[in-house]
Amino acid sequence: MKENPLNLLMSPRSIATVGAGNNPTKMGTIQALSIVKDGYRGRFYPIHPTEKEVLGHKAYPSVFDLPEAPDLAIFIVPAAQVISLMEDFGKIGTRRAVVITAGFRETGREGEVLEEKLKESAHRYGIRFLGPNCIGLLNSAISLNVTVMPLEGPPGLLGMASQSGTYVTQTLPYLKRRGIRFSKAISLGNEADIDICDALAYLGEDEQTKAIALYIEGIKDPARFLRIAREITLRKPVIAQYVGGTEAGARAGSSHTGAMAGPDYLYEGLFQQAGIIRVHSVEDLYGQGWALATQPLLRGKRIGVITNSGGPGTAMSHTCNAGGLEVPVFSEELQEKIRPHIPPHGARANPVDLTFFLDIQAISRTIPELVMQSDEVDGIVLHGAMGTGFMNQIYTHAGEMFGVSREEFLEAFREDTSAAVELPKKYGIPFLVSSFFDEDDDYTTAYREHGIPVYDAPEKAARAMVALWKYRQIRGRRLEAAPPLPPASKEAAALIAGAVERGAPFLDEYASKKLLAAYGIPVVNEELANSAKEAAEAAGRLGYPVVLKGCSEEIAHKTGRGLIHLNLGEEGAVRRSFEAIRQAAGKEIPVLVARMVRGQRELVAGAIRQPGFGPCVMFGLGGIFTEALRDTVFRLAPLSRLDALEMLEGIRARELLGEFRGMPAADRQALAEILQKVGNLLLLHPQIREIDLNPIIIEGSRPVVVDALITF
Amino acid sequence: MKENPLNLLMSPRSIATVGAGNNPTKMGTIQALSIVKDGYRGRFYPIHPTEKEVLGHKAYPSVFDLPEAPDLAIFIVPAAQVISLMEDFGKIGTRRAVVITAGFRETGREGEVLEEKLKESAHRYGIRFLGPNCIGLLNSAISLNVTVMPLEGPPGLLGMASQSGTYVTQTLPYLKRRGIRFSKAISLGNEADIDICDALAYLGEDEQTKAIALYIEGIKDPARFLRIAREITLRKPVIAQYVGGTEAGARAGSSHTGAMAGPDYLYEGLFQQAGIIRVHSVEDLYGQGWALATQPLLRGKRIGVITNSGGPGTAMSHTCNAGGLEVPVFSEELQEKIRPHIPPHGARANPVDLTFFLDIQAISRTIPELVMQSDEVDGIVLHGAMGTGFMNQIYTHAGEMFGVSREEFLEAFREDTSAAVELPKKYGIPFLVSSFFDEDDDYTTAYREHGIPVYDAPEKAARAMVALWKYRQIRGRRLEAAPPLPPASKEAAALIAGAVERGAPFLDEYASKKLLAAYGIPVVNEELANSAKEAAEAAGRLGYPVVLKGCSEEIAHKTGRGLIHLNLGEEGAVRRSFEAIRQAAGKEIPVLVARMVRGQRELVAGAIRQPGFGPCVMFGLGGIFTEALRDTVFRLAPLSRLDALEMLEGIRARELLGEFRGMPAADRQALAEILQKVGNLLLLHPQIREIDLNPIIIEGSRPVVVDALITF
Repeated sequence: MKENPLNLLMSPRSIATVGAGNNPTKMGTIQALSIVKDGYRGRFYPIHPTEKEVLGHKAYPSVFDLPEAPDLAIFIVPAAQVISLMEDFGKIGTRRAVVITAGFRETGREGEVLEEKLKESAHRYGIRFLGPNCIGLLNSAISLNVTVMPLEGPPGLLGMASQSGTYVTQTLPYLKRRGIRFSKAISLGNEADIDICDALAYLGEDEQTKAIALYIEGIKDPARFLRIAREITLRKPVIAQYVGGTEAGARAGSSHTGAMAGPDYLYEGLFQQAGIIRVHSVEDLYGQGWALATQPLLRGKRIGVITNSGGPGTAMSHTCNAGGLEVPVFSEELQEKIRPHIPPHGARANPVDLTFFLDIQAISRTIPELVMQSDEVDGIVLHGAMGTGFMNQIYTHAGEMFGVSREEFLEAFREDTSAAVELPKKYGIPFLVSSFFDEDDDYTTAYREHGIPVYDAPEKAARAMVALWKYRQIRGRRLEAAPPLPPASKEAAALIAGAVERGAPFLDEYASKKLLAAYGIPVVNEELANSAKEAAEAAGRLGYPVVLKGCSEEIAHKTGRGLIHLNLGEEGAVRRSFEAIRQAAGKEIPVLVARMVRGQRELVAGAIRQPGFGPCVMFGLGGIFTEALRDTVFRLAPLSRLDALEMLEGIRARELLGEFRGMPAADRQALAEILQKVGNLLLLHPQIREIDLNPIIIEGSRPVVVDALITF
Repeated sequence: MKENPLNLLMSPRSIATVGAGNNPTKMGTIQALSIVKDGYRGRFYPIHPTEKEVLGHKAYPSVFDLPEAPDLAIFIVPAAQVISLMEDFGKIGTRRAVVITAGFRETGREGEVLEEKLKESAHRYGIRFLGPNCIGLLNSAISLNVTVMPLEGPPGLLGMASQSGTYVTQTLPYLKRRGIRFSKAISLGNEADIDICDALAYLGEDEQTKAIALYIEGIKDPARFLRIAREITLRKPVIAQYVGGTEAGARAGSSHTGAMAGPDYLYEGLFQQAGIIRVHSVEDLYGQGWALATQPLLRGKRIGVITNSGGPGTAMSHTCNAGGLEVPVFSEELQEKIRPHIPPHGARANPVDLTFFLDIQAISRTIPELVMQSDEVDGIVLHGAMGTGFMNQIYTHAGEMFGVSREEFLEAFREDTSAAVELPKKYGIPFLVSSFFDEDDDYTTAYREHGIPVYDAPEKAARAMVALWKYRQIRGRRLEAAPPLPPASKEAAALIAGAVERGAPFLDEYASKKLLAAYGIPVVNEELANSAKEAAEAAGRLGYPVVLKGCSEEIAHKTGRGLIHLNLGEEGAVRRSFEAIRQAAGKEIPVLVARMVRGQRELVAGAIRQPGFGPCVMFGLGGIFTEALRDTVFRLAPLSRLDALEMLEGIRARELLGEFRGMPAADRQALAEILQKVGNLLLLHPQIREIDLNPIIIEGSRPVVVDALITF
């Protein structure tokens, strides 16, 4: 495997900056200050045309005056200067750079040209770089901070790759208040060179990083992304937010980093295929990401809910349940153990509700430990461990009655939190906390310091537990390669070549199915007839009842035009229908005679070539419901057998595929093969733009393609 | 209209407490302290057996020693004492009470009996009361606070009725930090007397309350709730969280307040019918509720997005779009006006992205005002107005370079926020802010002080805007009464009476459709045959093709048992099918001969009687998809015409009802009438437990009921 360019870039032994000086109102200075002040121990070389010293470090008038080729060069200068500087660093032997500077591809055509030139210059010298138009990076393991905000606290566990700089810099104080700490964070900017795939691969290998969060506006190479991600997610959770799937989101992303977005349903499919947990807000990206980074693997779905308040307890129970987790009723034995620790009107069956009861040791230590020891749950959500935050409120009214100062009062009520915060580690059990009391509460603070996530709402704690459960299921997946592509069928190639030569925009139904059949896709038995007599003979061979359809390259959609006659039971009907179709068509088109396939379950499969995305396979509910319900799933081709089987389980109407209303279960293997083959078709025949098999009728248990269209 | 019991209860001129003393570690004392300390100006009478004075107020040894009958009595005593105290207050003439005390219905059978006795005692004296098992109330207009937490800040605009005490008390400091302020808040407890309907009606009439938030574990009288809510939502937004719709949620709620929950889909339907905006977390309940309470009505769906950062800008644009709002590209004219105020590489088309650019006046004042003046948007979301919060971070690294203290530094950068925060009011435009900087930022604080919601994540600001858009649509609804119930059909009554007499658990298909037809519901033409000859004769009368089905009260579900023969084209087939059905049934059951109804669109309608909920009507996608897709909506009967039409638009597959694949639009009026009539059937005939019309086939445009089952 090739060395990841971020290995050196994220852990440089020496750094040079261009654009940092001694004016603290300048961006460059502020970023250099982060390097200088936050504990980075490598060598630091500011380049400055006039200053002798920058931020207490010897400054150098030009790149060529540096005492060594630094591992990393950071540019915070106007766009026009970046290219020649890149070349200067190339000449002295520097091979990694970060281009903070904006004003490239995101600004339009001129910027695009400039960005191309920048790439060429870097490429010429073998320089790999982040940006342009990024905000830098963080590596908490070596206290390297290149952002504009201070990095405080110990090294973290959550790795972040972001197509927005804000999410690794403006949010640092936000994250600090919530106890969330990065291992590494990478601002990707325009991804002229190093891209989100490199960052993902890097974080996947990074031992400090226990979970990976991605903020995504568009992925340039989804196939590579998938290849990297699906391997990582088997051993490390990946969580992602994608915001490019709407018109406004795509437009905004494009003016932000020039990102090329794609439809939401394709990204949804990509994430599912890759085993990535998707969220829809940056808060959940960080918040659930932090749970994934800090908590052990959830062993099962039984959750204990412990609370001092019915509302949060009910909301957490409901949210767990709605997310597929169980909140099992505790055994009588466990309930009896809990009973002495809660008031008589409290609840002990799960949720355990102490009600408004101020024995904080009971809620934070005694009861959680009893539940952990019971082996009746796999994870715990807790709401109601509150200390100084609550007492501080009480003091506001009652303080003078105690005759002590606020500080003395809080000190008197300060409890020993140490046993409580050690419990989860002691029992190795996922443990998530909700509290309405913030950093001013000693429990909130102590939990956070011990890597136990504390959320500011009960539903968030429960949803983070659901994320752990999602990851448990992903972790159980197997990685299976797509089988090698079969050789291209000569018959198929000839059909395509013929149509392309004729300038036909698509293959007619008969030819489309012949092409599918050439790859072993089960299509209905049918023959082409050019007279009523031929039609009747064909029907005799196929067996009644039959279907007649007008068939021509000039007619793509036959519905509602009198070109389809179903369920014809005898020769006379066939002859009459033949004439009727010719009349409806207004010309002597060939007519397809097909065996009538019977089955109530109609599905659709297809493949599309989305610009910038590559061939994708689609599966869903077919027939008239295709458009009305859009109950469809997508995956990138080629598909492994497991990919295809997961697609079948991905539709809302998945129940239809099992034994259903007296019908046998659909042959899932056969369906999966159709999906794999449809994907392969686009890979084997670049002329094909789109394939649509609709409907595929489940006849008995066997899928049969009844109509098909192949478009160029 | 009857006087709402909360009018006096929420605004008492005098209050007596039982259970408050001078021990500040007791709950009763803490609650009384809130009354005494937070500015309530009415008369306050603590009752205490031994103390002469309680919290600085003269104490009275018993109820009978009080100098007057207080408007309100508050009980914070053990459950066993509540009843006799209630009677004592009744005797002296007090007519409102709050029972904080727990240990009633929520604890099981014994508590239930105690609660019944409490109700009887109160009823005997005409006392209306809140609780038991509640936490009290807040009326910020008169600074009345009965909760355990201090109430700070000016009176607010959001009214809250909560089936959890925590959400009107533990969360007060949480809300204060977020700038959210209650007008009135009511903790409902077990609702032995005053219930959520009373609270909703009260808040609906309260002028101070501009939006209403409801936390719900179960509603005892959904029909009354609907009646009250649907009228209020036309003039005041109502937002609700419901957590009783899962097994664990229902169980937790039951042990919390003894709430009787119902399935989630019924509550979903109830909220839609009532025009209530539903959320799934208490954070959204407060956060979106605060936007609804503070912001003017959104006039349209065009949203301007203003940001200093691409990530939040893209996320807000995407979230607006995904929620049905538009983020229109600005006119060239407006873009030109914006251009001078942003850096050259910034974006001005909407979103306006200043990029990381520190002209805070531009982002907070100049650009928002240009956009407001343009008349090109109906609302604005903003991310990036940051002042001291940001500078405070900068100081951490750069402070010493400025040679001033942190305080001096922040003071020097403190900007005049006044013009920025006045803008939204000046232009009367909904304006929502996102910031990663919290109360330590002067912009965050200033916005909040001026009633402009500030969210801690961009998606939350965008989602709150979506909530405003939802309310805009609700506000446009008309209130239409359900038509009066028609007289019960004698034929229908006879059919039911006959079946009930025979002990039949349901009406057979033939009888079910006869009953439906008696109310004018369009059912397929059909006849009952007892011999092959009769069947053939019936088919001749009905016209070919026909359908034959075995028909018996002993057989409810015919599918997959060989009892249905479709599409029979001639007499021979009819005779053969008749014999085949008899054979499959194993006995000489009657056989239904029906015209074959043709149509690809199959729907379902039905009605159920859910315990504790009343008759509900269901509509959805029918045929084999009913169970597999569960694309259904529910409403409480009786339905107005608009209710029924809204149901049709409520299914995911609603597109099917329009012109579709060459088929004409379905007759929505006819469908709506079926739904109304199905609801009426349950109201007219209490013996009917469930009605199931499946499928209703759209033949051409006309709905025809093809199969039906009426269950007792």
